[in-house]
Amino acid sequence: MIAKLFAPLAANNPGAHGLSDDAATVQAPSDSELVVTKDMLVEGVHFLRDDPPDLLAKKALRVNLSDLAAKGATPRNYLLGLSLAPWIGDEWLTHFAAGLAEDQKRFAVTLSGGDTTASSGPLTISITALGAVPLGRMIRRKGARPRDAVFVTGTIGDAGAGLAVLKGEGVGLSDFNRSALISRYQLPEPRVALGRKLLGIASSALDVSDGLLADLGHIAKVSEARIAIDAAKIPVSAATQALWGQSQETIIRAATSGDDYEIAFTAPASARTRVEELSKSSGVAITEIGRVEAGTGAHLLDEKGKPIAVPRTGFTHF
Amino acid sequence: MIAKLFAPLAANNPGAHGLSDDAATVQAPSDSELVVTKDMLVEGVHFLRDDPPDLLAKKALRVNLSDLAAKGATPRNYLLGLSLAPWIGDEWLTHFAAGLAEDQKRFAVTLSGGDTTASSGPLTISITALGAVPLGRMIRRKGARPRDAVFVTGTIGDAGAGLAVLKGEGVGLSDFNRSALISRYQLPEPRVALGRKLLGIASSALDVSDGLLADLGHIAKVSEARIAIDAAKIPVSAATQALWGQSQETIIRAATSGDDYEIAFTAPASARTRVEELSKSSGVAITEIGRVEAGTGAHLLDEKGKPIAVPRTGFTHF
Repeated sequence: MIAKLFAPLAANNPGAHGLSDDAATVQAPSDSELVVTKDMLVEGVHFLRDDPPDLLAKKALRVNLSDLAAKGATPRNYLLGLSLAPWIGDEWLTHFAAGLAEDQKRFAVTLSGGDTTASSGPLTISITALGAVPLGRMIRRKGARPRDAVFVTGTIGDAGAGLAVLKGEGVGLSDFNRSALISRYQLPEPRVALGRKLLGIASSALDVSDGLLADLGHIAKVSEARIAIDAAKIPVSAATQALWGQSQETIIRAATSGDDYEIAFTAPASARTRVEELSKSSGVAITEIGRVEAGTGAHLLDEKGKPIAVPRTGFTHF
Repeated sequence: MIAKLFAPLAANNPGAHGLSDDAATVQAPSDSELVVTKDMLVEGVHFLRDDPPDLLAKKALRVNLSDLAAKGATPRNYLLGLSLAPWIGDEWLTHFAAGLAEDQKRFAVTLSGGDTTASSGPLTISITALGAVPLGRMIRRKGARPRDAVFVTGTIGDAGAGLAVLKGEGVGLSDFNRSALISRYQLPEPRVALGRKLLGIASSALDVSDGLLADLGHIAKVSEARIAIDAAKIPVSAATQALWGQSQETIIRAATSGDDYEIAFTAPASARTRVEELSKSSGVAITEIGRVEAGTGAHLLDEKGKPIAVPRTGFTHF
């Protein structure tokens, strides 16, 4: 059953050997190296049993593609590990594989192999994704320099707002906003096409998964610098504002939600024009939200430049 | 805590970026390509909660290194995914990391990255291992040809016998045999140094994990050939014979146990001398146990060449 469902996902990948071997071969193009990342998603921690299996498959794949994109890498292949809880049946697996098939086409990746095992539960999905970057050019968290500008793609907080809606907030919200927010939570849009174009522009980057403020804190820490964020500049969608209101509290909540899967990056001020051009050519909003300074930590500043006290910087899983 | 424990495992791996980034870079040497494999181990399926954490860490790593070795690849790096059950504490993690550290030295591999997450349980360990082979030379399951000879390293059935001892068999067994068999079950010895030397010798290979007969059945299937095994030639250790007796029943049981992590391979008869030399130079017994023929399936034959009826071909997890 599983072989029948997953073998087609490897059909266009000669290195997968039809999933009939113990291992797969993976090649980086010449003058490139492989970038590899691994994320585990656990039922009850990262998703719920009732989540539609096709969306779950896509989310599990996309969070890994998002990691690669933020590193400037072009995703190529992935390995899938499934530890199947007893409640998983053939129908669930069929929809799960169908979700993967759709996203493989969308993001031009193929399955290389993996492992499936029974478990007493919970369902655990482990994906290892492989991409390629020009040799030595992976965009790291380390590399932000004082006087660099800080940018973020898309809007921040929508996934957190979507989770809040699923938990019962926003009773009066329009159906349009409601489903837009839920979809941002259930199905992130990894910035795959944009990410690789940050090579030669970004001095540091990561994808926003723990929460914008926490993630910029990671960059600040390994780059040994301070990141100052102008709270008012953080891009918050109309839907999230409709849910939480237009207030500083909303911005704080957005900047400390998780699962955005936007790219936050730093770049020299001289690259500002190229960033604007990239935003136009890719059709993805890129907003300048702050700057790198000497010092430590990532800080949210009010309109007078004074630090805003933030109760927590990142996302707590439900 | 986890960062403190695992960062040293990545210290000698520049591509791991001190585990402080979202992804790692991995390079194959020139004229090589990467071979990648992924195995998941689940508490209650592949191991028990009481298993010593250092041994468990080694086993989880070794089953992956064994896959690479059987493909002729030289292991280089691995990614570690841990879905931590609530009963896992700091002491357990410390011993787990210590086990990895020891095997990293032994097998010359380093940690590239990974993911750790909380879970309601069971403990799930997901390792993705990466190795290198000369471009296009990975030894596959496919490739066995009629008139090839069939070989296996080491002895077969010890891990199955060790599991039987743990389950209460062999009350009168000597302490020496008892602990030898249990250790073969708890801590496989992947044939890493030998595996890469099968390049240019083996026409097909895999590591014996499902059971010798079942695994040779995999080779037969994808190679579209028949594999005939002389039951009497299957190497069974003195310890396993002490447990199960010297009978055809013992051989059947050995050939249908799992977790041996020996390498079964096929090679042209003309390579026989090189196989003998390899056995001598590596200090690992390699036994010729049969031949490839036209036909289908893997079959155990008695001394008259008649097929032995086998109730089941492979390992059933407890």
